[in-house]
Amino acid sequence: MELKEVIERFKAHQKKMRAYWHALGLLSYDSRTTAPKGSSKGLGPTLEVLSEASYKLSVDEGFVADIDTLMAHKEELDDLTRREAEHLYKEISRMRKIPMEEYVAYEVVRNESETVWHQAKAENNYALFEPYLDKVIDYERRFARYYAPDKPVYDTLLDNYEEGMTTQVLDGYFAQVREKLVPLIHKVAASPVNIREDFTTRSFPIWKQRMVSDYLMDVLTIDKSYCAIGETEHPFTTEFSKYDVRITTNYKETSMASNIFSVIHEGGHALYELNMGEDLTGSVLAGGTSMGIHESQSRFFENYIGRSREFVNYIFPKLQEVFPEQLGDVSAEEFYLAVNKSAPSLIRTEADELTYSLHILIRYELEKQIISGELTAKDLPAAWNKLYEEYLGVCPPDDSQGVLQDVHWSSGGFGYFPSYSIGSAYGAQMLAQMERELDVWGLVAKGNLAPIVGWLTERIYRYGSARKPAEVLDNCVHAPFDPRYYLDYLEKKYTEIYQL
Amino acid sequence: MELKEVIERFKAHQKKMRAYWHALGLLSYDSRTTAPKGSSKGLGPTLEVLSEASYKLSVDEGFVADIDTLMAHKEELDDLTRREAEHLYKEISRMRKIPMEEYVAYEVVRNESETVWHQAKAENNYALFEPYLDKVIDYERRFARYYAPDKPVYDTLLDNYEEGMTTQVLDGYFAQVREKLVPLIHKVAASPVNIREDFTTRSFPIWKQRMVSDYLMDVLTIDKSYCAIGETEHPFTTEFSKYDVRITTNYKETSMASNIFSVIHEGGHALYELNMGEDLTGSVLAGGTSMGIHESQSRFFENYIGRSREFVNYIFPKLQEVFPEQLGDVSAEEFYLAVNKSAPSLIRTEADELTYSLHILIRYELEKQIISGELTAKDLPAAWNKLYEEYLGVCPPDDSQGVLQDVHWSSGGFGYFPSYSIGSAYGAQMLAQMERELDVWGLVAKGNLAPIVGWLTERIYRYGSARKPAEVLDNCVHAPFDPRYYLDYLEKKYTEIYQL
Repeated sequence: MELKEVIERFKAHQKKMRAYWHALGLLSYDSRTTAPKGSSKGLGPTLEVLSEASYKLSVDEGFVADIDTLMAHKEELDDLTRREAEHLYKEISRMRKIPMEEYVAYEVVRNESETVWHQAKAENNYALFEPYLDKVIDYERRFARYYAPDKPVYDTLLDNYEEGMTTQVLDGYFAQVREKLVPLIHKVAASPVNIREDFTTRSFPIWKQRMVSDYLMDVLTIDKSYCAIGETEHPFTTEFSKYDVRITTNYKETSMASNIFSVIHEGGHALYELNMGEDLTGSVLAGGTSMGIHESQSRFFENYIGRSREFVNYIFPKLQEVFPEQLGDVSAEEFYLAVNKSAPSLIRTEADELTYSLHILIRYELEKQIISGELTAKDLPAAWNKLYEEYLGVCPPDDSQGVLQDVHWSSGGFGYFPSYSIGSAYGAQMLAQMERELDVWGLVAKGNLAPIVGWLTERIYRYGSARKPAEVLDNCVHAPFDPRYYLDYLEKKYTEIYQL
Repeated sequence: MELKEVIERFKAHQKKMRAYWHALGLLSYDSRTTAPKGSSKGLGPTLEVLSEASYKLSVDEGFVADIDTLMAHKEELDDLTRREAEHLYKEISRMRKIPMEEYVAYEVVRNESETVWHQAKAENNYALFEPYLDKVIDYERRFARYYAPDKPVYDTLLDNYEEGMTTQVLDGYFAQVREKLVPLIHKVAASPVNIREDFTTRSFPIWKQRMVSDYLMDVLTIDKSYCAIGETEHPFTTEFSKYDVRITTNYKETSMASNIFSVIHEGGHALYELNMGEDLTGSVLAGGTSMGIHESQSRFFENYIGRSREFVNYIFPKLQEVFPEQLGDVSAEEFYLAVNKSAPSLIRTEADELTYSLHILIRYELEKQIISGELTAKDLPAAWNKLYEEYLGVCPPDDSQGVLQDVHWSSGGFGYFPSYSIGSAYGAQMLAQMERELDVWGLVAKGNLAPIVGWLTERIYRYGSARKPAEVLDNCVHAPFDPRYYLDYLEKKYTEIYQL
């Protein structure tokens, strides 16, 4: 038997798999950005046919046999091929546990559910969405049990997004977050410091905001030859290859900052994908290694860079140039303070850095109860509102601003939310290391982000999924995960802003 | 043998085929509108994999056997199933004549060629495009010979777009067009009538032009739940189902009319697809029956409706409202005359109604010579410029405004251009019949296009490809094709405008 032949066939099969991911990914991206609203009627049959074909490829007998062969000859493989084989072996062991009809049926349900969620949110009609959410929850639990019958279901779901993550670890993490941040948030609330806000809700025409998005992509060193920006309800990033990355944003006429930090956040995701190693092209390992590491990058750029005084000072003259009437009477420092104002609020994506992790804590608590069966879709709005009242002291006036605000659950993304908070903590730890090696703030003050992106590319981006999350973090900070950097950062920043 | 089972399998297989068309269509649409320019690097492998799968479906042995079975039991089939079987039998007889590797390789070449054409046009660099065009020409001729070894190659290509069309028919048609229109164009050129034009090249901000596009889609009765508008270099329309139609336009800051008539033209194509019969959903016969009939609809709305005095009078107040500075000193009549001004020009898509068919005549002559081998890609720019000089008395200052202006040839669309001119002639004949049955101009004057769209839906749209072009025309006008309506219409209109 020729190992070389097996490897060639194995690589060609990956190319085929990626072709279907590309087509399915584009159908999904398009349906959330460009497609006319009613087009989902025609989308179902196409998703059904292509996801069936994609599933068949991933469990193809010849392919599985090739993977077994490669696993039996691990020591003879180059590093990338070995990691591809290991990765696929794990995936396939899972995939084969799901009956194909259920897999295909769930793809259709997810698509319908997400479409209905868009409508339900727009019309503030949770009842419309409720039966779809119940179906999605049922599928997620069922699939998790297929995957790992002996493991707690929620741990299986967490592992989907962050390999090795467990409820036990997260319970500990969130306890620490709660202990440090809740008193800090109380001190901020009691601070007499008044942050000027009158200009933040002025009218910022959307066609001008589009110019700001373009400018920010340039500052972030995003090459627009390989990255386009689209518009959607709930911004996200998707990639079909390192040559084709799509970020999205949601323009609101009376909230310019919302778009700015959406673009920077999604831009952080995009930088990860755009700076993938060339050697990963066509490999199943092209693409970020985990949701947590991905979020560490989006939050690194959104918060640590984007909301820094240095960055705001750098971009503010451009903002004034685009919006002379709206920002002519505002100083860079006032703008800096406004985009860092902290106050408990209703909408996760618009929450400030300080209160953000409490939004995640709420979702974390609810997800555990949904998955354990303590809560069903019917109970969710009340439970949601109760926790917002309890942790943040605010109560959603309607479900669109409450339980319907996020897209994630509609397509089954249970276990995803915690990665946002973990990502922030990873990012702070990475920043501390970067500060030891680079004049980070001198660079940011000059709008010169290339060396920063280069530093991250060397340590994180170029490896794609060929390194596991813990390896990536270690490669970057030469130490195990430590949330202290995150909590210290927040304490220092908000103590200064609110003169505590 | 159960015929019912065969029919079910036959319908399910069509659904599968449509799924691949949908994905491939979206990949193509996206690459021409939303995708970042450099993304074509990652597109090739995906197109290769999916078009191979699509090709395999269309020549699948079981499917072909089912078609044979259905053809042997034609009299037992319902009308739609019989027409599907006949249509596919013809297609498959052709498809099977092309070796699969060549089919797949050509899909990749077409994609590359079109991408390079975009770049060549932008950079006015014909040399960049030339080798790709030669390859495309070679494939087109080769495939036509595979299809019909005993038929003139150009006739085979014409038949791709308009079933039954021949060089002989077109030679006669264009002779008649030339004979009637050339003297008329000369008389117009000699007319002392001066049409005011100063306002047409004022600055019309693109974000405001987007509002006009939206408004026009509404006037055309286009349901935006099922039809979206994108932006591209050379506008086109594509459809994935009657629930998902995409039109495109190309905004130019100093030419508002260019966008208006693009939207109306593509809107005409869209109306055909949006008003397809519900019974055709999922069938290979969903979609317009021929390029000529499709163009009859785009040109019907663009010219006969869109450039009528009644329509201009109806939309002009809205245009003034959007562009008060640019159009405040202009009357509706001045606007009507400006959008109907006739003068020989360089760009086909911006040509007026009267000179338009001469642009097609030039392409028709060149295509015949390219396909016969008298001309190669290398000779084309000089030959193009010579004919423009000869027929229209204008000479392109560069290839971007000459031979590089149209996308069609870059992806192998030889034989397509004549359908534009034939479409205009069909449309005029349809209009004459509609005028006998409806108060067309009274309706247009009120901006009430629904009865007009309804009339066309009844006679044309709902049948999709379940009726052949000649049947559709006959169903509409109860007479054979007659170009006299087209030529009479032009003579009457331009005699009035230019006071001949």
